[in-house]
Amino acid sequence: MNYVQQLTDVIKSIQPVSRALEQQVQAHLDNLTKPRGSLGRLEWIAKRYCLILNTLRPVIPRKAVFVFAGDHGVAEEGVSAFPKEVTAQMVYNFLKGGAGINVLARHAGADVRVVDMAVDWDFEGVNGLIHAKVMRGTRNMAKGPAMSEEEAAKAVLTGVELARKAVGEGIDLLATGEMGIANTTAASAITACLCAREPAEVTGRGTGVSEETWRHKVEVIRRALQVNRPDAQRPLAVLAKVGGAEIAGICGLVLGAAAMRRPVIIDGFISTAGALVACCLCPDVRDYIFAAHRSVEQGHRIQLEFMGLEPLLDLDLRLGEGTGAALAMTLVDAGIKIYSEMATFQAAGVSAGAEE
Amino acid sequence: MNYVQQLTDVIKSIQPVSRALEQQVQAHLDNLTKPRGSLGRLEWIAKRYCLILNTLRPVIPRKAVFVFAGDHGVAEEGVSAFPKEVTAQMVYNFLKGGAGINVLARHAGADVRVVDMAVDWDFEGVNGLIHAKVMRGTRNMAKGPAMSEEEAAKAVLTGVELARKAVGEGIDLLATGEMGIANTTAASAITACLCAREPAEVTGRGTGVSEETWRHKVEVIRRALQVNRPDAQRPLAVLAKVGGAEIAGICGLVLGAAAMRRPVIIDGFISTAGALVACCLCPDVRDYIFAAHRSVEQGHRIQLEFMGLEPLLDLDLRLGEGTGAALAMTLVDAGIKIYSEMATFQAAGVSAGAEE
Repeated sequence: MNYVQQLTDVIKSIQPVSRALEQQVQAHLDNLTKPRGSLGRLEWIAKRYCLILNTLRPVIPRKAVFVFAGDHGVAEEGVSAFPKEVTAQMVYNFLKGGAGINVLARHAGADVRVVDMAVDWDFEGVNGLIHAKVMRGTRNMAKGPAMSEEEAAKAVLTGVELARKAVGEGIDLLATGEMGIANTTAASAITACLCAREPAEVTGRGTGVSEETWRHKVEVIRRALQVNRPDAQRPLAVLAKVGGAEIAGICGLVLGAAAMRRPVIIDGFISTAGALVACCLCPDVRDYIFAAHRSVEQGHRIQLEFMGLEPLLDLDLRLGEGTGAALAMTLVDAGIKIYSEMATFQAAGVSAGAEE
Repeated sequence: MNYVQQLTDVIKSIQPVSRALEQQVQAHLDNLTKPRGSLGRLEWIAKRYCLILNTLRPVIPRKAVFVFAGDHGVAEEGVSAFPKEVTAQMVYNFLKGGAGINVLARHAGADVRVVDMAVDWDFEGVNGLIHAKVMRGTRNMAKGPAMSEEEAAKAVLTGVELARKAVGEGIDLLATGEMGIANTTAASAITACLCAREPAEVTGRGTGVSEETWRHKVEVIRRALQVNRPDAQRPLAVLAKVGGAEIAGICGLVLGAAAMRRPVIIDGFISTAGALVACCLCPDVRDYIFAAHRSVEQGHRIQLEFMGLEPLLDLDLRLGEGTGAALAMTLVDAGIKIYSEMATFQAAGVSAGAEE
């Protein structure tokens, strides 16, 4: 069976989040010593978490952030402020524990799992890295498809398998992150196509480019869309033509989490591009997703609105790597603790408020 | 010396945050393996924290949330959905560890210190409570001043002393919280006066009142302002006339933190009313304050804009107790860890980006 067919089977296996326990979960939240709903989104998180895991007794989950790394042929068009070598250099930084995601994952009590999806570097024999290289950098989307559909499907299936394996190990909360010089260009192209927007609307400054480079970046994205003519009705083809292998890995992790009925926290603009492809492939995955934060990248807002996701944080982050997702993990823990540790009105001897 | 004079001396002792290390702190942040500024408000937090403590080597601080409790004479006007007895009942809940603030303070690794400022209940002999009762409930502000200026100054000084004592014990991060049935009415009255707004603009639903009760609440606040005629140029008198003893305690904790050169995180609408009085008494305290979150209470936004504070979180919280402040403590830790634990470009062998 080829990769595209295998992926179709994964998608078929995904079920909507069960609402069976909704009333019981809500009743418990309403019986805690606080005015109803006064803990706002923490209560919302707790409820969503309970429904996804289909439990009335949630516990603090084991956690992992998956950092998918890949290079992009389109980097040769000069769309980034950083040289392409930085992708591989940062992979080593992740493995040594010195990057932003390492710090924030430790803060959240989460493992960091670094996945080589398509870095243009030979990591043979490097320990601590998940070796899943689909290719050594994608091809330049400004000249033709970045990947074939089989390559893209293989990369998505890598993400699916990583999610399955993690849940099998007892990890109940997953998060996505990435590293890939020029990957905001790919994320913008995916977003322009799937959300039916002009490239200029969904293209930001990436990790810090000038006005001139920004105009050039928009032009490169426009060219990539003209050359490849991706069809929004075929999300896998969009991912293959103007996406990237790390974005495909993210898409797969989201699909895999949903297939395993576990929540997945998505990070910023690049991660959300992967989640967007997943949602277009299978709308039921949406309810398994927590959107971590609202990035500075202007296209991120458009993606989130398109999917109907309201992010938890808004801290002007634009680093990627999964940093916002790691921070959001601490809010998920907080929501679960509210649900499990607060006293009820009866237990605490507190008078409930008047029903108005 | 009377309380008002003592308070004047405290205010005189407060110095602005030193900017001496600003360039060094910024240079270190810019040298970490990430695009400049890409960790947004986490970098901002780290920088502010370093400047407040005047250090280049910040460490994760010991933390305490102070929950000031007080009753309000104006509760007899029927402005709350909860009966007045809930203030004392919740104090017992705090002491037993079952309230929202207990859960979230544990989550943040912070102590909870519960202070009886003016609860209309006899807590004599109750362990674990900080006994600082100024009065048994304030007087009804709709009929005359809630407190005398001496009572208000005494309550403020209690907060100042608690901050001093905590910093002396090695606590380097303070936060404010409160409990007091009807205290949104007092906070609204303070805010209307100090921010020069109409009562209806700064009055929210509190912990959940109907449209009819809301109209009545606005009317009660209007009456309190007419009866007392507080003068915005005399913030202590405003606090005395239409405030509350727990709000005065918060004001004092903010002043005390600034006097001791330590950061203080303020919670929602009530806490921010206390901080607003502190800022009006001494504008230099502003730079010692982290605003935890944007509350659902409509007056909160007005207070924050008036003080020029941008909150860290926006999670639809409206519980108070210090719950938002406790959550924000985890972000302060995250910012400090970014500053202290991330690798530099040189150490990690990562190429820096082009300066554009």
